[in-house]
Amino acid sequence: MDYILCDENAIYYECGYSSDNALFIRCGSEAFFITDGRYSIEAQESIRGAEVVTAADLVAAARLLLKKNKIKKIAFDPKEWNVMDFEKLSAKSSLYFREIPDFSKKKRIIKNDEELLIIAKAVKLGKKAFKSLAKEIRQNGFGKDEYALTYLAKSILSDFGRYDLSFDPIVAIDSDAAKPHALPTDKRLKNGDLLLVDAGLKYKRYCSDRTRTVFAGKDFNFNTKQQFRSKKIQKAYDTVLRAHDHAIAKARSGMKARQVDALTRDIIEKEGFGKFFVHSTGHGVGLDIHEMPVISSRSDTIIEDGMVYTIEPGIYIPGEFGIRIEDMVAMIDGKAMVL
Amino acid sequence: MDYILCDENAIYYECGYSSDNALFIRCGSEAFFITDGRYSIEAQESIRGAEVVTAADLVAAARLLLKKNKIKKIAFDPKEWNVMDFEKLSAKSSLYFREIPDFSKKKRIIKNDEELLIIAKAVKLGKKAFKSLAKEIRQNGFGKDEYALTYLAKSILSDFGRYDLSFDPIVAIDSDAAKPHALPTDKRLKNGDLLLVDAGLKYKRYCSDRTRTVFAGKDFNFNTKQQFRSKKIQKAYDTVLRAHDHAIAKARSGMKARQVDALTRDIIEKEGFGKFFVHSTGHGVGLDIHEMPVISSRSDTIIEDGMVYTIEPGIYIPGEFGIRIEDMVAMIDGKAMVL
Repeated sequence: MDYILCDENAIYYECGYSSDNALFIRCGSEAFFITDGRYSIEAQESIRGAEVVTAADLVAAARLLLKKNKIKKIAFDPKEWNVMDFEKLSAKSSLYFREIPDFSKKKRIIKNDEELLIIAKAVKLGKKAFKSLAKEIRQNGFGKDEYALTYLAKSILSDFGRYDLSFDPIVAIDSDAAKPHALPTDKRLKNGDLLLVDAGLKYKRYCSDRTRTVFAGKDFNFNTKQQFRSKKIQKAYDTVLRAHDHAIAKARSGMKARQVDALTRDIIEKEGFGKFFVHSTGHGVGLDIHEMPVISSRSDTIIEDGMVYTIEPGIYIPGEFGIRIEDMVAMIDGKAMVL
Repeated sequence: MDYILCDENAIYYECGYSSDNALFIRCGSEAFFITDGRYSIEAQESIRGAEVVTAADLVAAARLLLKKNKIKKIAFDPKEWNVMDFEKLSAKSSLYFREIPDFSKKKRIIKNDEELLIIAKAVKLGKKAFKSLAKEIRQNGFGKDEYALTYLAKSILSDFGRYDLSFDPIVAIDSDAAKPHALPTDKRLKNGDLLLVDAGLKYKRYCSDRTRTVFAGKDFNFNTKQQFRSKKIQKAYDTVLRAHDHAIAKARSGMKARQVDALTRDIIEKEGFGKFFVHSTGHGVGLDIHEMPVISSRSDTIIEDGMVYTIEPGIYIPGEFGIRIEDMVAMIDGKAMVL
């Protein structure tokens, strides 16, 4: 099927290059990468398998190309396009624009070996960065507030500017960790606090994603073996860890995504924390930090070999604390391999 | 006129709070802020003058509110909405959705005194950060590559995580500065290089934006008085600086934006650099880094008191060097005041 893309990562996936102002059309055996003058030289040097078209008005250029190539029907993702650009593209056109939500993400749901290797490397770099971050916090982090700790996480995850980040890291202390998408505050880290860190980096444009929740004693680390002073916290922590480990051990290709979700949710519900697990078990990861499959209680997606996603159960007690443990897995030979 | 917004900054402007998942409806004297459970407590604490509505499906909740309030006609910005959400909002509805591109940006084009004070503070912090950055580069920056220097700029502009950045800083050496939107490379800074830095930070969500191009000798600073070894560079630099100063001195409320653009462009063209000034003279700045007015050769917008925009002429000689000097101005009592 012929299609037109405007999302930067969707385009990168097609031709190994992209820019923040580009369109991509595939029609039959031909492909066109449309961008403006700022990027045309780089594009010509980098792209194989697509003709580079330089234009000031990308949408107008796309219309012309669709017409010249006598396209009758073309797929697009209605989540990618804004109303104005799409109206400009489609106004008074005799083309049939077929809406396919998540068109590119659906194509990208199974990772090939090259992608798996790149993602594995991103995860490895992320893991190493967590280790460095723990060391830095042990030495200089106590007394610092969440802003400063977040900055520290950004610095170390990016290897001081070498890598892009998958997203702004979350660094949350005690009750701040009860908000799954906590923004930093001026709360300062004290010896013995609960500390949640959720962070990832990009390697060759592919994302990593990891969360650890720890008892921040003087000699803490980001391993999953953690000892808290509070019995309530320990119970929640052990439950989350058990749910996390269980899902990784039992996830199989051929299951529905909601069955994988149930692997964590059932354990958390049985321990009475069900209503405090307020999000899905996980999400696909690739060029975008949120890809398919969605590992939620409502998803009928069949899990297949080559899929990469997070397992990240959590328990959030408002005003008290939050626990989340997250790793990325790849489905290999029918099982979930921790990356 | 009643309207519905989905852009985060557009919503913040209406009610002093926003989140990355929110809709805002104003109908007559009533207003509604729709968000999901993660943000509803914060929203209720922060918002005055709008009712907070919590919903899992924001668009469905908006449809219901529009119906309940018997709205007949509502304005929206077709650049804000993606095709899918807008279709969901408007499908089988008897409402008339009036498209107004840049609806919120048009409302925000004139800044009030409170906004002007906040922006002035953002600019002041940015200026101070440039000074600290110069000091840091003088002491430790020579020999570092553009990645490391960009990281340094991020660190210092954000005051080590205290402030958000207006955008990823641009730090470009010599011929890399010839790309107006240069991405960092592994080119290292040597004594005597040309160095371009374009960076800004956010204070209370409002952006600053500044560019300096300097001769990076051992004791350089980011003042506009610069002495280059190359006569060609010096001529280009002096031309850009003259264009910059001239526009600031001569811009008046009541002019058209394209007349302000001509104040820089005419000087650059007269010196024979016209075809190397490849962008507009400037852009409005506020909650977004790119707001209205657009100071371009095609803009008929009338400049008015209270507008805030950049003056940033440039000359870019491909493969050789690039010069840009940028300051923000506010129109006060008919004239452009440098912030």
